[in-house]
Amino acid sequence: MVKKLWGGRFKKKIDSDFDKFQSSIQYDWRLAEYDIYHSMIHSLALLKMGVLKPQEEKKLNAALKEILDEIKIGQFKYNPESEDIHTEIQNRLTEKLGDLALKLHSFRSRNDQIVFDERYYCVIETVKILGLLLEVLGIFSELANKHKEDFFIGYTHTQRAQIIKFEDYLLAYYGMFVRDFERMERFLKNLEIPVGCGALAGSYIKKEAYKKAIEETIEFIIKGVNERYRDKRWFKLSENPLSDVSDRDFLIEFLSILSILQMHLSRLAEDLIIYSTKEFNFLILPEEFCTGSSLLPHKKNPDFLELLRGYTSRIYGDLVSLLTLMKGLPLAYNRDMQLDKEPLFSSVEIIKEELKILAKFIKEVKLNKKVISKVIKEDQNLYTTEVAEYLTEKGIPFLKAHEIAGKLIRFAEEKNKKIKELDNKILKRFSLNKKIISEIFNPNFVIKRRRSIDKEAENKLKALLGFKNA
Amino acid sequence: MVKKLWGGRFKKKIDSDFDKFQSSIQYDWRLAEYDIYHSMIHSLALLKMGVLKPQEEKKLNAALKEILDEIKIGQFKYNPESEDIHTEIQNRLTEKLGDLALKLHSFRSRNDQIVFDERYYCVIETVKILGLLLEVLGIFSELANKHKEDFFIGYTHTQRAQIIKFEDYLLAYYGMFVRDFERMERFLKNLEIPVGCGALAGSYIKKEAYKKAIEETIEFIIKGVNERYRDKRWFKLSENPLSDVSDRDFLIEFLSILSILQMHLSRLAEDLIIYSTKEFNFLILPEEFCTGSSLLPHKKNPDFLELLRGYTSRIYGDLVSLLTLMKGLPLAYNRDMQLDKEPLFSSVEIIKEELKILAKFIKEVKLNKKVISKVIKEDQNLYTTEVAEYLTEKGIPFLKAHEIAGKLIRFAEEKNKKIKELDNKILKRFSLNKKIISEIFNPNFVIKRRRSIDKEAENKLKALLGFKNA
Amino acid sequence: MVKKLWGGRFKKKIDSDFDKFQSSIQYDWRLAEYDIYHSMIHSLALLKMGVLKPQEEKKLNAALKEILDEIKIGQFKYNPESEDIHTEIQNRLTEKLGDLALKLHSFRSRNDQIVFDERYYCVIETVKILGLLLEVLGIFSELANKHKEDFFIGYTHTQRAQIIKFEDYLLAYYGMFVRDFERMERFLKNLEIPVGCGALAGSYIKKEAYKKAIEETIEFIIKGVNERYRDKRWFKLSENPLSDVSDRDFLIEFLSILSILQMHLSRLAEDLIIYSTKEFNFLILPEEFCTGSSLLPHKKNPDFLELLRGYTSRIYGDLVSLLTLMKGLPLAYNRDMQLDKEPLFSSVEIIKEELKILAKFIKEVKLNKKVISKVIKEDQNLYTTEVAEYLTEKGIPFLKAHEIAGKLIRFAEEKNKKIKELDNKILKRFSLNKKIISEIFNPNFVIKRRRSIDKEAENKLKALLGFKNA
Amino acid sequence: MVKKLWGGRFKKKIDSDFDKFQSSIQYDWRLAEYDIYHSMIHSLALLKMGVLKPQEEKKLNAALKEILDEIKIGQFKYNPESEDIHTEIQNRLTEKLGDLALKLHSFRSRNDQIVFDERYYCVIETVKILGLLLEVLGIFSELANKHKEDFFIGYTHTQRAQIIKFEDYLLAYYGMFVRDFERMERFLKNLEIPVGCGALAGSYIKKEAYKKAIEETIEFIIKGVNERYRDKRWFKLSENPLSDVSDRDFLIEFLSILSILQMHLSRLAEDLIIYSTKEFNFLILPEEFCTGSSLLPHKKNPDFLELLRGYTSRIYGDLVSLLTLMKGLPLAYNRDMQLDKEPLFSSVEIIKEELKILAKFIKEVKLNKKVISKVIKEDQNLYTTEVAEYLTEKGIPFLKAHEIAGKLIRFAEEKNKKIKELDNKILKRFSLNKKIISEIFNPNFVIKRRRSIDKEAENKLKALLGFKNA
Repeated sequence: MVKKLWGGRFKKKIDSDFDKFQSSIQYDWRLAEYDIYHSMIHSLALLKMGVLKPQEEKKLNAALKEILDEIKIGQFKYNPESEDIHTEIQNRLTEKLGDLALKLHSFRSRNDQIVFDERYYCVIETVKILGLLLEVLGIFSELANKHKEDFFIGYTHTQRAQIIKFEDYLLAYYGMFVRDFERMERFLKNLEIPVGCGALAGSYIKKEAYKKAIEETIEFIIKGVNERYRDKRWFKLSENPLSDVSDRDFLIEFLSILSILQMHLSRLAEDLIIYSTKEFNFLILPEEFCTGSSLLPHKKNPDFLELLRGYTSRIYGDLVSLLTLMKGLPLAYNRDMQLDKEPLFSSVEIIKEELKILAKFIKEVKLNKKVISKVIKEDQNLYTTEVAEYLTEKGIPFLKAHEIAGKLIRFAEEKNKKIKELDNKILKRFSLNKKIISEIFNPNFVIKRRRSIDKEAENKLKALLGFKNA
Repeated sequence: MVKKLWGGRFKKKIDSDFDKFQSSIQYDWRLAEYDIYHSMIHSLALLKMGVLKPQEEKKLNAALKEILDEIKIGQFKYNPESEDIHTEIQNRLTEKLGDLALKLHSFRSRNDQIVFDERYYCVIETVKILGLLLEVLGIFSELANKHKEDFFIGYTHTQRAQIIKFEDYLLAYYGMFVRDFERMERFLKNLEIPVGCGALAGSYIKKEAYKKAIEETIEFIIKGVNERYRDKRWFKLSENPLSDVSDRDFLIEFLSILSILQMHLSRLAEDLIIYSTKEFNFLILPEEFCTGSSLLPHKKNPDFLELLRGYTSRIYGDLVSLLTLMKGLPLAYNRDMQLDKEPLFSSVEIIKEELKILAKFIKEVKLNKKVISKVIKEDQNLYTTEVAEYLTEKGIPFLKAHEIAGKLIRFAEEKNKKIKELDNKILKRFSLNKKIISEIFNPNFVIKRRRSIDKEAENKLKALLGFKNA
Repeated sequence: MVKKLWGGRFKKKIDSDFDKFQSSIQYDWRLAEYDIYHSMIHSLALLKMGVLKPQEEKKLNAALKEILDEIKIGQFKYNPESEDIHTEIQNRLTEKLGDLALKLHSFRSRNDQIVFDERYYCVIETVKILGLLLEVLGIFSELANKHKEDFFIGYTHTQRAQIIKFEDYLLAYYGMFVRDFERMERFLKNLEIPVGCGALAGSYIKKEAYKKAIEETIEFIIKGVNERYRDKRWFKLSENPLSDVSDRDFLIEFLSILSILQMHLSRLAEDLIIYSTKEFNFLILPEEFCTGSSLLPHKKNPDFLELLRGYTSRIYGDLVSLLTLMKGLPLAYNRDMQLDKEPLFSSVEIIKEELKILAKFIKEVKLNKKVISKVIKEDQNLYTTEVAEYLTEKGIPFLKAHEIAGKLIRFAEEKNKKIKELDNKILKRFSLNKKIISEIFNPNFVIKRRRSIDKEAENKLKALLGFKNA
Repeated sequence: MVKKLWGGRFKKKIDSDFDKFQSSIQYDWRLAEYDIYHSMIHSLALLKMGVLKPQEEKKLNAALKEILDEIKIGQFKYNPESEDIHTEIQNRLTEKLGDLALKLHSFRSRNDQIVFDERYYCVIETVKILGLLLEVLGIFSELANKHKEDFFIGYTHTQRAQIIKFEDYLLAYYGMFVRDFERMERFLKNLEIPVGCGALAGSYIKKEAYKKAIEETIEFIIKGVNERYRDKRWFKLSENPLSDVSDRDFLIEFLSILSILQMHLSRLAEDLIIYSTKEFNFLILPEEFCTGSSLLPHKKNPDFLELLRGYTSRIYGDLVSLLTLMKGLPLAYNRDMQLDKEPLFSSVEIIKEELKILAKFIKEVKLNKKVISKVIKEDQNLYTTEVAEYLTEKGIPFLKAHEIAGKLIRFAEEKNKKIKELDNKILKRFSLNKKIISEIFNPNFVIKRRRSIDKEAENKLKALLGFKNA
């Protein structure tokens, strides 16, 4: 059995099934890099406290960097019998340095490390997700630009509602992803990564020692973070260790943000699935993101979109998992909290894959302009709001005008006629005439009447995000 | 049947069971006040658009204010047969003003109103919750101040871990509630209340008309909001109507924030339930928040705490409800979204009640100092971390020192002795002596070694929040 | 303040905000009828134990029946200041009978009553839901019968897959609801309603006394239950009181069953929403279950279906609420458990409304045969599986045949030709000829090849359920 | 790229990121065994349909059995680039048998296989879980037997309520697990495993061919299932293919059952965590299932119990995941459904590990009789219900007797006296006397009064389950 970080007071050996059950190395290896950073800060603080000699700190630091290099080039292999990543790295150091390595854990607890590692993991992954989201935003923005002049149909209740521009439609999702982006930036800005919690009651290490240790290592630690987001103020001394070791708010907040983003993805997926049916035929999906059937040779299925919609189940499930986990846990740390990691990792990895593929996918979706044109030409209902509004401008109180327009539609349907074909005698009953109708039943008229997307606001944002077509 | 806001194109009358099923007036009456505000802005905009004459706008405004007064004094009675609050208010206006009232709805949709009403409801209720939370924070801060000198036991894994101050314990929850407070403030600051969405594609009303209408009514509308939070920039023109009418992100975000707050409450409840058992007996709960049993005459049950813990189920359930609701909904508005209101209202009302009572309750909880003293005196395990740390300072690598301390505990337990009673000969085996032990086994020694709560940070916050004992 | 069932040992009066917070009468009045039944059994048992004299029991029984009559005719009015329904009924009895009423609660606890009431509520409501579901099943069965000969399109991945009968489609939902029905019947059969739990440790009342009391009242109690389900064995003595008072499994099981049913409803809703779009136009929805828009005069929205889909959010939310509630609660009863009622009542009431309206709605949905015919005639992809199967029967390994059929489709698409129009020379490349194609490209050929719905199984069930068209 | 089961109609190659994203082999390899069984039945049916010649079927069968043997001895290695387990096995067969293998997929779809595989997986895993649960039940039963005479304290609201036997406490959990066991048995009995669904509309294979194929393979397929549960009727022809391919009810039902079981485990964990605190000290946990702290040398933490409680988060999360997944999916199969597997596998694997370790753990938990004795002797409140009941038997209406007993407790507390020490003069005020008090204040008296656990029912069950100490 692999060496553990505790055990002196125990007479019996740990049950081997339980040992496997309780170990977390199979998933918390993802925290290896961050654990190294914590140890780098900590060993420097121990130097400043006089617990390590300069030569000792140097050796520890070098050994830590050796392991870090393995991690960075993807060569890090963990012993599956280690209890967790903290134990694994400690044992590696002991192999390399003998008794000296045993000094590293002075005055610190794994609780310190978990808090640090998990929060820095969130920082790094949030930055990655922001990058992927930016990519997606850029493509939506480009597409919107490209489709400035193309008509589209706006739906409510999955029923045709009004004529819009395809740009409007694309910018609606653009708007959602901007909200996600901003929410994630706020989250990142408010994240804190405390050191010095101890097990729950703080550490013997002096404030000054830790502060200096942070100052001297910070450049090294954050050099990989995108400059746009890099923020040295993330790292700080724990102001309230009891609270810090038992806090998982940031994870719930993070997964809530991802859940909202995922919900947006599910809506986009649903829309595109519907729009790409043979019946709608508004959009044509790129074949390289579809699959076929093993029985039905003709099938070209929108699998990417279905999986995109389906993964909502997992992100929501992970959020519920974290909420359930934390309900009613007494202070401070409880072992239950170890189970926060798999939902976190799972959600982060799913979201990243989705965004990566979405960017490639959405670029290749084609608008079927011919079909849209036909709808706009043939469906007279798309112009009736303007009929009611016209009557209102003529002085008929709106709710009456609305009723008149409704009755006109019903009349035309019952007579099985197009409104455009009705003669002036009939139209007069509805306070209308052919000239008005022909003016109104025009997509450009309809679009122009309504205030469209606020391009000014959009352009400001684009500039801010550094998009070219701002 | 009560008049609806639609119907001209319908031949058949609505099924009466379905009519009841689809109506929302039973719960959306809570939005009455905000709906009035929307109508005030809208009628002013219609004036500026020339759809209403000055005299008409004046009459409409006066009638709206009459209804508002009813609402404010709690005299507003709705007709349970109205479809929703928007229809109800429209019908009231029609009763008062006849045809003139029918003009009010020109160029707007109920979608406009829902978005406005629901978001302003969130503003108002967030401000109320912030007020209640501030009250709770104040009491925790006072209590912490009062218990500066009192010892307490810090737990991990529901097992005694280290001696702390009762202040530390109280400030851990204080810290959680501060995070909740800040999260809610950020939410509030970033909320937006758009006007002019139309059904989905924007409204015919000109930007300038709406902007001026907002400017001229804003003072009246926000005068009830606590000055600390009042923010005129909340109100703006919709920049992206398609996105705005189908957006419920703000609700999910709000309920996520409440879920985290509620999770904190559940942890506090769990702790206090355990600490007030006869077995722990660390805390004595105020009788006026307990109830008895109808069969067992002696029972004094911690019902408030149990309900506080139990209500977690409802807030989480409401959040899951909203997440489920929005999954895979195609753009833009769908009727499903009507069902966002009950979970929202329910969560808000539960949280407010909880906080109101918690403030009164927590003030009356008594610390049983005698019991704590006894534990600190008798439980030698509470000092063994300092034993290991002492050995480390003497040069023994920490993980070895930790093992030695563990063996010492085991030795004492096996011999059924107190460590303090062991003689020097035995202590020497563990690199210790009686003098060191007597120095270490002292709660004041233990507390002093570790960096406690960062009082500076805490005081800064208190000052910011305007607490007296900052 | 209204009299409570406890309080002798309390010095202080209950806090009035907390009193309101902790009371459940606003929702548990729904249990009034069942609470009466418990008291009827209990007072008879007390008679048999000698605690009540015959005359006393008679008076109590009469008073209980008076209240029961009020409940049954909907005239029961509760005092909103009563703590709960048990207290309310006790206080009513005390008003009527004075001190005699105070004897009724001998040797029982409210825990006894809650368990009994809540479980019998589940029995009664399950029976009602079964009745409504049977109604829905009957209508689906009738419709299937009516549409035996009508073609329809089967979809996978929301893409056209194969030609089916509309009957097949209807029977797919019929099959789902049958599973729901059977699941609910199994639940009902396995429900138990214990008496004699006491607070947690059993009651002083002798087994025989309780058994006889149950025997003598049972006829009266269950006379309202539909004979098909009536089961005297529901009522039994608690075999394990500690387990019984803390058991909410039956509620979670019940809400799981309702969640599956609700999920089926959401799928039906989604399907019908898509099928009734203007683009699909396969189904025409009954106007009396649709609503319009306050801005767009032409809208006829599928609101019933949207709400049906949307209510999934509530049933799921209620289930999550109950699961969260029960997580980690120590034995035995905890006050948290009081919060099980609102999610239960809410889910039951939603499901009943949905089923009631669904039965009326679905009957009026019209199949648009003309559109279906056109699709079947024009979409050649619907026949390509049979092409592959034909080739397989000719000896080409299926996966090769599948590939050939796939290439044929691609060829025709690229050439922009109908497969039917290809000449023999070309078809030969795909091992086909015009004769074969014309034989295969026939909906009746296609349908006949595949084993359809098992009518035997279906008819057996119909007979069992007592449907006419079995 | 590895060969897929579709593709003829596709011009472009699948995007490689998307290919990885959509593949399921990383988790659905767990279905390999069941997929082989499906192919065995299917190839036999093809023989009976004349699509395969006897020699061909023999070769296929032999090749399938070769792969099965690999699986059974744990030597099965899949190609991580295969799309899914069905493709993987198909490709393996093609390697072994060339074109012959391509015939196997005639007239079937992967939808057929998924339905079969996933349902048979549920059968096999349910049987395993039942076995583990039986083990746990046996141990609880043994422990109850062993602790027949030992007193324990019954709690409500985490406050001492009444004296019980430790047997009663153990049997409460025994009762919960029996309910879980029965629920799982009912689930198993009602599971069905259909063949012949096709993609959605049934298969060309004749009923008789399939029936015979099932008959001839069934013995081989189910020989590994525990005889107690083995049920040939599981396997049947699909009666309603459209419903069968889109049905995931059985998974939601299964995970609901596991959620209830997990909830019971969380309650047991919570109880034992509390009972094994130093403050309660009622139970002593086995060291081999505890761990220590890396900073605090004295800690012996109840990690197994904490993880047991914590895993509730995952099982609930998985259930929510499945519910979310299925919400609003149109008929029939959608790719979203592929995401049902990971939550299923995860929940099943967690539950099995928990039960396996629980059986070992619970056997070693020690009751601290000395502490219990002391509580029973010293805590007079544990006898006050009997005081109220005594007064009731003397003729005082119970609710008055309850009040008197309450006042007695308050009196004694205020005077800081034991009730046993009060003299007759005082006791008389409460209608009591010293003789009565000394008779009542006796744990044996108290236990005897209340009907305990129904041993008859328990023994019947034990016999049924085959336990020795029945």
